[in-house]
Amino acid sequence: MRTVFFISDGTGITAETVGHSLLSQFEGIDYRQERIPFVDTGEKARDCRRRIDEAKARDGVRPVVVSTLVDPHVAGPIRQADALHLDFIAAFISPLEAELGVKSSRAIGRGHLGATSKDYAARIEAINFTMAHDDGVSSAELDKADVILVGVSRCGKTPTSLYLALQFGVKAANYPLIPEDFERGELPGTLDAYRSKLFGLTIGAERLAQIRQERRPDSQYASPANCRWEIEQAEKMMRREHVRWLSSTTKSIEEIAATLMQTIKLNRHSY
Amino acid sequence: MRTVFFISDGTGITAETVGHSLLSQFEGIDYRQERIPFVDTGEKARDCRRRIDEAKARDGVRPVVVSTLVDPHVAGPIRQADALHLDFIAAFISPLEAELGVKSSRAIGRGHLGATSKDYAARIEAINFTMAHDDGVSSAELDKADVILVGVSRCGKTPTSLYLALQFGVKAANYPLIPEDFERGELPGTLDAYRSKLFGLTIGAERLAQIRQERRPDSQYASPANCRWEIEQAEKMMRREHVRWLSSTTKSIEEIAATLMQTIKLNRHSY
Repeated sequence: MRTVFFISDGTGITAETVGHSLLSQFEGIDYRQERIPFVDTGEKARDCRRRIDEAKARDGVRPVVVSTLVDPHVAGPIRQADALHLDFIAAFISPLEAELGVKSSRAIGRGHLGATSKDYAARIEAINFTMAHDDGVSSAELDKADVILVGVSRCGKTPTSLYLALQFGVKAANYPLIPEDFERGELPGTLDAYRSKLFGLTIGAERLAQIRQERRPDSQYASPANCRWEIEQAEKMMRREHVRWLSSTTKSIEEIAATLMQTIKLNRHSY
Repeated sequence: MRTVFFISDGTGITAETVGHSLLSQFEGIDYRQERIPFVDTGEKARDCRRRIDEAKARDGVRPVVVSTLVDPHVAGPIRQADALHLDFIAAFISPLEAELGVKSSRAIGRGHLGATSKDYAARIEAINFTMAHDDGVSSAELDKADVILVGVSRCGKTPTSLYLALQFGVKAANYPLIPEDFERGELPGTLDAYRSKLFGLTIGAERLAQIRQERRPDSQYASPANCRWEIEQAEKMMRREHVRWLSSTTKSIEEIAATLMQTIKLNRHSY
């Protein structure tokens, strides 16, 4: 088994994301992963080099090193290890300097916005808002929501809202559609004033039954017949009320969030 | 102002992360950002090309295009636009193929784990666990927590826990340290059995007062003197009880999470 290192002078999260994206293109390749964050001195870099050399000796194959290292004093020792080195900063910074006509600062640990910036405060505010508006617990300040997710219980509203808040600073409320709403044949009255902000999530009945079964085994709530009925009703309601929606059945949180933002034209940058 | 495009056959989140990482190396450069996700057909690619060309005509400078495009039928038309093209997939897939000795699948939309994988279920479980254990609301199943964050109210426990769950599938509970704990001079009794899982967060008193002031203006809770006292007490307690901790004052959520995982040797992969 080959070892893949994700090495960075910051958190290493970007290096790991890039590495996963590349490795997902190779099916059936098994590899051991090691993330080494905060490599910001020559000494730590030499330690990394030792770990890469050890992995090569142990595995019998060269490791792959995905890195984001801007300081040559740190990158230097690591590059000396016998491995396949992939660093998009090293690869792209020179063409970018030439294009922009300025030299880069080559400053370390710049990947994430510090906690004192204004943008960062907006992100925390979005997280607080989203936590306070999970599962319809509060209808206060729904006018401040960027989006209100609707759908039956356990269709993916909570993870999606949290991801929207954390990754994009979106104030995402969510509101459950429950059997009482279907019997009345109307959207919950609280949502009337916010129709333009609604986005629906639905899910395959079989998948929903599986998820609910884990939470409340053998309940009416989790029964396949009830799940089918709730979903049919919810989809019928969303169609009738012209709520834009998508199915979360096979989508990751990232895909749901990106699709939602594209559909409702919510233009936010990723943190 | 120059336009920077983040273009992908998937969500575009990885391309944007890479782009931000590169652009953070250039101080004082202002740019307009456009993320274009799900570009998975030749037609959508030609539409992208038009948008890039329009941006060039409008801005009077070449746009920068940060992309992750694996299908040549999609990448082709986009590359024809007059822009600086930066694509780490295009740059790194050939050396990686040579190293691994296999051809890549060049399959689109592979960046994120689909919702039906086992790994993905573990991620959702971690999110549910973390939501159920925010702010000490439940001490049930704390034995299943990977980490329990402790600290005074508003020091950053909730955003950190949520990030750990969403990004790394970590089951992160959090538990507030309150004046009653300081007066008693002991950690909350509930936590006794879980000492090895505790990780503390602290924060500068001035910053804490600022954050609390926004929530409860002119309260005793938000007063600088009280914030100073609570933080002194919390830090004293964490030192005495040998709880590992860090200050969140100037750190991003990503930096807090990566430092925490490194400190307590919690080895999880990023989603």
